Amino acid sequence: MALCARLDELDYRTYVLLGDGECSEGSVWEAASLAGLNQLNNLIALVDVNRLGQSEPAPLGHNLDAFKDRFEAFGWRTEEIDGHDIDEILEVLAAVGLGKQPLVILAKTLKGAGISFIQDQEGWHGRALSKEEAARAIAELQPTAKSGVGHAIPSPTQLPPPKNDVGPYPPVNYKLGDMVATREAFGNALLRIGGADQRIVALDGDTKNSTYSEKFLKKFPARFTECYIAEQNMVGVATGFATRGKVPFASTFATFFTRAFDQIRVAGISQSNLKLVGSHVGVSIGEDGPSQMGLEDLAMMRTVAGSTVLYPSDAVSTEKLIDEMAAHKGICFLRTSRPKTAVLYKNDEPFPIGGAKVLRQADGDKVTVVAAGVTLNEALKAADSLKNEGIGITVIDAYSVKPLAKDIIRAAAQKTNNVILTVEDHYAEGGIGDAVAGELSADGIRVHKLAVYELPRSGKPQELLAKYGIDAQAIVNKVKSLR
Amino acid sequence: MALCARLDELDYRTYVLLGDGECSEGSVWEAASLAGLNQLNNLIALVDVNRLGQSEPAPLGHNLDAFKDRFEAFGWRTEEIDGHDIDEILEVLAAVGLGKQPLVILAKTLKGAGISFIQDQEGWHGRALSKEEAARAIAELQPTAKSGVGHAIPSPTQLPPPKNDVGPYPPVNYKLGDMVATREAFGNALLRIGGADQRIVALDGDTKNSTYSEKFLKKFPARFTECYIAEQNMVGVATGFATRGKVPFASTFATFFTRAFDQIRVAGISQSNLKLVGSHVGVSIGEDGPSQMGLEDLAMMRTVAGSTVLYPSDAVSTEKLIDEMAAHKGICFLRTSRPKTAVLYKNDEPFPIGGAKVLRQADGDKVTVVAAGVTLNEALKAADSLKNEGIGITVIDAYSVKPLAKDIIRAAAQKTNNVILTVEDHYAEGGIGDAVAGELSADGIRVHKLAVYELPRSGKPQELLAKYGIDAQAIVNKVKSLR
Repeated sequence: MALCARLDELDYRTYVLLGDGECSEGSVWEAASLAGLNQLNNLIALVDVNRLGQSEPAPLGHNLDAFKDRFEAFGWRTEEIDGHDIDEILEVLAAVGLGKQPLVILAKTLKGAGISFIQDQEGWHGRALSKEEAARAIAELQPTAKSGVGHAIPSPTQLPPPKNDVGPYPPVNYKLGDMVATREAFGNALLRIGGADQRIVALDGDTKNSTYSEKFLKKFPARFTECYIAEQNMVGVATGFATRGKVPFASTFATFFTRAFDQIRVAGISQSNLKLVGSHVGVSIGEDGPSQMGLEDLAMMRTVAGSTVLYPSDAVSTEKLIDEMAAHKGICFLRTSRPKTAVLYKNDEPFPIGGAKVLRQADGDKVTVVAAGVTLNEALKAADSLKNEGIGITVIDAYSVKPLAKDIIRAAAQKTNNVILTVEDHYAEGGIGDAVAGELSADGIRVHKLAVYELPRSGKPQELLAKYGIDAQAIVNKVKSLR
Repeated sequence: MALCARLDELDYRTYVLLGDGECSEGSVWEAASLAGLNQLNNLIALVDVNRLGQSEPAPLGHNLDAFKDRFEAFGWRTEEIDGHDIDEILEVLAAVGLGKQPLVILAKTLKGAGISFIQDQEGWHGRALSKEEAARAIAELQPTAKSGVGHAIPSPTQLPPPKNDVGPYPPVNYKLGDMVATREAFGNALLRIGGADQRIVALDGDTKNSTYSEKFLKKFPARFTECYIAEQNMVGVATGFATRGKVPFASTFATFFTRAFDQIRVAGISQSNLKLVGSHVGVSIGEDGPSQMGLEDLAMMRTVAGSTVLYPSDAVSTEKLIDEMAAHKGICFLRTSRPKTAVLYKNDEPFPIGGAKVLRQADGDKVTVVAAGVTLNEALKAADSLKNEGIGITVIDAYSVKPLAKDIIRAAAQKTNNVILTVEDHYAEGGIGDAVAGELSADGIRVHKLAVYELPRSGKPQELLAKYGIDAQAIVNKVKSLR
């Protein structure tokens, strides 16, 4: 939010309330570091140093100097105050904005201050008072309670509106059959719509040359935030931009978003308008090995409250889905692939959220194959190969994993003897197979799954697709094995 | 690992290699903080400060003083060296163990040092050299290459074995019908087996009075590590203990493990022997609201490579499953509930990983209800209620969510017209319903799901189970609605 004030040239200030125990979280230091580097003198943190955690004293106790040293090392100006003294708080706040550093106010407090049987004592975290205890506490607090008179809080200044203009988006422009990685199409999409849609900002975690978000940076540097290798804070910063009406696209390798699952989950609870794009999914990334492979991202993102999960297979659908994400309110995740894949769709093909495309279908098809991303391309190859043997299969591009186009998929399955085969470059748990089975098994559809069932190793992309049983040949074999 | 050396009274040292870009990650500062607090002078970190990230220069460049200030503020001793000077590295390492602080060696280096066209330049991260470039690079490096003679690395001392004795576990002891929360049974289990199994250590993130791991702390304080509110590092520390042959039980609220998803994922890749116990799952925690409710943990933990996911419904099964976890090699997750639930099983009932219990079954049952945790108790209530109306249901305790007891569940379903109803206190995506549908829909089983389908709010536990459609009445209604 403080970065957004800079972008919109607005003079509001952003306040952050922190607990002392909470300062053990690394995400606090990710944020502190980026704020220091960006010299955000419009950002004020207030740490309630009350000495007590939930289950025992917090690690630094009332040692305000330890907090001071840490924040100063991360580029902040510090002020130590008595957190119970309103005059002191106001005096410090009056000096906000001085210098080039963010300000942290270290407020020494006592938990339960002024109540003799609670003050500075353990065992009261998250515990409600009995009626008698409450009466006693109020009686103790009443005589020392300070009047609010003379402490009027000034109203916020009416701010001019932020720069959030939106015009019509330029059209998508590819040729059928062109080889373009969906991750590069994501970069192209941001570049294409960035001029028309002033709400769009981009963020990356030092992977912008791999995710292709650098295309946006080069054209719109003021609207790009390099968050360095700190994904928790990247999602936090993106959520901040969203609260100011921006449409933040945060990108990194899909699997690195696992670092920020809690931030994403809480953004879900806050119904934030967050857009996440994760690249390098599945074994098809090849040589870099399992630590870099997104094989859990669909499971993670599907289970976020109110999320939309998208998985395009070609450049056109990627660009169209980025447009959809920008228009849709709520958390959206789009997973992109590393290898180049052929453009399958015409430039005017629509890709609504919740849709699916039936790419192959004929009377007498044996099974409906549901795939997305690289496995959709494998499914199309399998369809060609099986056709030569006289076996027909229906092939569906399930680009919208959540919400799933269950009506389209169910209708297709009903024409293939109620049998579906899902194929995905993701672990077997929580991905496309589970989504389809979870939605359609109640209708009597039989769902067979091909997915990555073991910890993969490094190798060439096509070798790995074969080894883990999700390539065209594996699809051919599985289709033939079905009765 | 450094903490484990203390515990086992061994004098080995633990070395950590860090990149400068990586130091943007908050998890580094979580670890730095705990190491400083514990005065781990047997821990040495070496930061390769080469100035360059993947996509642009790292945020602190060659500013070694900035790293020095940060590590010193977190309680570390620092040494700045020329990272290309082996003699200087050895000199600094000779002084390891002095003082009471962990040591960080800040090594100034140049990426691609000694190769004129690469040294200190951007654009070479993760890029392979062409044959010609490689030949040129070797030719440039050869003349300045230093001999290894005189730099013999001393062999590690042969260490006495760590203290990892295991004796027989004492028996479990509850009475049928007693009301005990599964989270408390977890604490009881650690306490019961902690004396017999010296491998067991426990860790918590300042929630030990809620997860009940404090029972272990009180009896075995030397084997408990308070990690404070820093879940990423807690999982990292637990993984370190596991590498030394310990069986680390790390506990916090289930949903707070989302903070550490990346650490858990990477522990999965490392095939670590990690044991995680997450409490306060689902809407049944009640008033604390959605930020504290574990509603995504089954999806997250199922998708971890090689994981085991357990979800007990009563105190006996909880204790037996903790025994199973301690005996099983690999990552295990057990989710516990906040409310007290009745003891359902006798003390000698076995609970093997991969099993399930058929609790109600009769000829003519209409549907097989698969549940676990609080919803199993709701399913039993529903069975009683439906019985009064002449409708029989089979009820299965699916305490092993992964691996799922698919043979037991399939066999039961086949006796109820191939119809299953799953009921779970978890979001609809990636949990028990998806697991059962994903495993059994291929066999022609129809799986209907009851789960939490919207962002929940705060309320009384039983009110929330009703509002989100996973209580006994919802089960009764759903069973009646099935044709």
